[in-house]
Amino acid sequence: MGTFLNAPTERLLMYKISDMNFVIIGYGSIAQSMLVMLVEHAKINPDKITIISMENKNPALLESLGIKNFLMQTITPNNHQSIIGAHLTTTTVLLNLAVQVSSADLIVLAQEKKAFYLDTGIEPWQYQSENSTHATTNMALRQQVMALKQAGQRTAIVAHGANPGFVSILIKQALLKMAADHLEHWQTPATRDDWIALAETLSVRVIQIAERDTQVRAQPRQAHEFINTWSVSGLISEGLQQAELGWGSHEQTLPQHCTGYPADHAATITLNTQGINTRVKTWTPNGLHLEALLITHNEAISIADYFTRYDNHQIIYRPTCYYAYHPSDATVESIAFLRQFGSRHFDKHTIIQDDIISGNDELGVLVFSDKYRPLWLGSCLSAEKARKQVRGSNATSLQVVSSIYAAILWMLQYPDAGIVESDQLDHAFIWNITHEFWNPMLSQYLTQGQVGNHSHQFDSFLIKSPAED
Amino acid sequence: MGTFLNAPTERLLMYKISDMNFVIIGYGSIAQSMLVMLVEHAKINPDKITIISMENKNPALLESLGIKNFLMQTITPNNHQSIIGAHLTTTTVLLNLAVQVSSADLIVLAQEKKAFYLDTGIEPWQYQSENSTHATTNMALRQQVMALKQAGQRTAIVAHGANPGFVSILIKQALLKMAADHLEHWQTPATRDDWIALAETLSVRVIQIAERDTQVRAQPRQAHEFINTWSVSGLISEGLQQAELGWGSHEQTLPQHCTGYPADHAATITLNTQGINTRVKTWTPNGLHLEALLITHNEAISIADYFTRYDNHQIIYRPTCYYAYHPSDATVESIAFLRQFGSRHFDKHTIIQDDIISGNDELGVLVFSDKYRPLWLGSCLSAEKARKQVRGSNATSLQVVSSIYAAILWMLQYPDAGIVESDQLDHAFIWNITHEFWNPMLSQYLTQGQVGNHSHQFDSFLIKSPAED
Repeated sequence: MGTFLNAPTERLLMYKISDMNFVIIGYGSIAQSMLVMLVEHAKINPDKITIISMENKNPALLESLGIKNFLMQTITPNNHQSIIGAHLTTTTVLLNLAVQVSSADLIVLAQEKKAFYLDTGIEPWQYQSENSTHATTNMALRQQVMALKQAGQRTAIVAHGANPGFVSILIKQALLKMAADHLEHWQTPATRDDWIALAETLSVRVIQIAERDTQVRAQPRQAHEFINTWSVSGLISEGLQQAELGWGSHEQTLPQHCTGYPADHAATITLNTQGINTRVKTWTPNGLHLEALLITHNEAISIADYFTRYDNHQIIYRPTCYYAYHPSDATVESIAFLRQFGSRHFDKHTIIQDDIISGNDELGVLVFSDKYRPLWLGSCLSAEKARKQVRGSNATSLQVVSSIYAAILWMLQYPDAGIVESDQLDHAFIWNITHEFWNPMLSQYLTQGQVGNHSHQFDSFLIKSPAED
Repeated sequence: MGTFLNAPTERLLMYKISDMNFVIIGYGSIAQSMLVMLVEHAKINPDKITIISMENKNPALLESLGIKNFLMQTITPNNHQSIIGAHLTTTTVLLNLAVQVSSADLIVLAQEKKAFYLDTGIEPWQYQSENSTHATTNMALRQQVMALKQAGQRTAIVAHGANPGFVSILIKQALLKMAADHLEHWQTPATRDDWIALAETLSVRVIQIAERDTQVRAQPRQAHEFINTWSVSGLISEGLQQAELGWGSHEQTLPQHCTGYPADHAATITLNTQGINTRVKTWTPNGLHLEALLITHNEAISIADYFTRYDNHQIIYRPTCYYAYHPSDATVESIAFLRQFGSRHFDKHTIIQDDIISGNDELGVLVFSDKYRPLWLGSCLSAEKARKQVRGSNATSLQVVSSIYAAILWMLQYPDAGIVESDQLDHAFIWNITHEFWNPMLSQYLTQGQVGNHSHQFDSFLIKSPAED
């Protein structure tokens, strides 16, 4: 990864969002909220938006927004070039918000057409079946995309939603707070090396992406129903993958049955347990002590990679990083059936949105240091506030689309950045736009050792005897 | 009111909480959470606790806590001296947590016995029937209690729960934050005059106690059921009273049909509308813009009074202060029936507690200044966190009992303070004990004019055409 890019640009603003065309692949909960964001918040002319999806799940929304360009098409390896390619120009923003539409292939296509590109997670054409260990791991998918760096210079932002995505901004915000609270002499970092140095100065050892979702509908879960606050198929596919995490330089012992470092010193290790069967201790301000699922996510790898310091090809410093996710209670219930009966058990996939009667998505970063108390910093956004800001959204989808929105504005200012991840974006730029949507933001210090132990070994966070379901 | 009391004491700690006896009047949701707090958190021997209530609503809790002293008695003007008096000694803390058990008479009794006293609101023996304007207004009740100042010197803390109560501490915390963010030269106030001077320097004009409760159970409201997150009879009695508010020195025009200042320059005005029919604009971090009910509360008066500066008996400075309450949605629904059919409509009073499936009680102060942006500061506590901290509690009851707990510890350090309100307590002492329970605490600045108008006249907050129910 390069050392992009906090440096101010002297380039004139070449692209205005109001001049852009938008091609959106997928029409799930994120795409729907994104449309409201674009039309009602950013005042994009609805004629400039084209949606391509295999199913029109919400025709009423299109009507209310005045969006006419809806193409009902399943995008495949064989048709994506012709179908999507026909809509791409140098003033197109291609948003890949579908599950199992290849990020790599769409990036190549976008680069050919000099179109802008963004996704919220690196997707393959198809996830391998249960118990696969490679090929569609996040590590493999990320390496595949990073190998495309020569495909062109048009900005393509990968894996930038809430997480992966804005949580990379939150980490930097947390480091700034810790510095302000603890260090006498410090400066706001300007380069990646500066950020690494700050993390190392603060003795940051572990970064958890710590989430507790309490959004709830009134109606109980039906038999064979999988309930989630975002894409059900998205969660099932990542939950069934083996758990992956960024592996810190302070860790002393690899977990049992882990596949170990890959030969090329990627930042990642892969456990032999699926995400839905890998439990870790975490903490959020209202959840307090939680058992969460360590579900593989791009940010676990990209953040650990970003914050790695090498000396003569030796890893001198890297924090451990992973996602610790306590989904909504109805999702936890659904996952219990997934674990027992597999994904075919479900005949109904439900995303709760307008039917949410209460609850928040507490999503933040929990930063553990050797020197200072652990710090949780993040959002305590409620569904009620989310839908007041962007109609039809819930807390989860607003966290994602407000992050996408800021990233779009960033890439129009930096149109030739090539393929970048959230960690390479200008932290202050994204923060300034997104944090109002993520409010209420809060930060809270924990007691050292309250979660995990004082040496911050992964072992002390891992829950070894899963509770019976 | 005197100018009590931030001054450090050199008196030795005369009373230890573990040596005290507790007599608790009432056994509703607050009393129940308070018992858990005392026995499980403060490690009070259950034999030192006596409960006197007309009904044992939760025998299982008593059993689990090992509390044996439960006296099933309705306390009346005729029997309170003999029944309660028999249990009071110089090492008793009398907690009046009942509705319609006279604060004034219990204070007199406690003073006679040199027992400590605390209530969470000044209660009469009986609220006057609907449409009464005096006698049981908060202004009248407060004056009645303040007239007892000569009854004795034993500390009796009145009106100290969440609100009225800890919100008085939050205001001082908000003033400190505004000072830190905006003023170049300032000191932490040490006296009441200092606090007034700070508020005046900051040009504070309006203080709303701004609350949005989103706690919810799964089961819909039944016909004739009144649902609340704390005492139903408490809410009904205060909601049916006429709205009262502390009236600031910047206000230019009295509201229509208000009774005007009482002759003795009390800080208060009384509207001719009941609280349930008096709507004001407010704001909380997750509720955003809200229509709330201006329900009469002691803090509206005590805070306005506390922050009044006189010069030669002329009022030079006073902020407007009132409670702006958006109860849980099921409570709002219940109130619609109360409005239409009166309190006799209900054959079931329900306090949701263990059956809460999600939601938070966002309770804070919203401080409007002429010079700076409005600041909301308060708690975003969820029911989930509340019950993890104090079993059986919800967010509302934990906010109250953690405030009571700190006040008890304070009065054991200051046993001879006489009758005091929350505003006279040592702000830092109470904050340090209570805020962990109230976490996550957060503060957020609004845009000037986002709620109300720039001149902060009451008129701009009042909603004149109530929505149809």
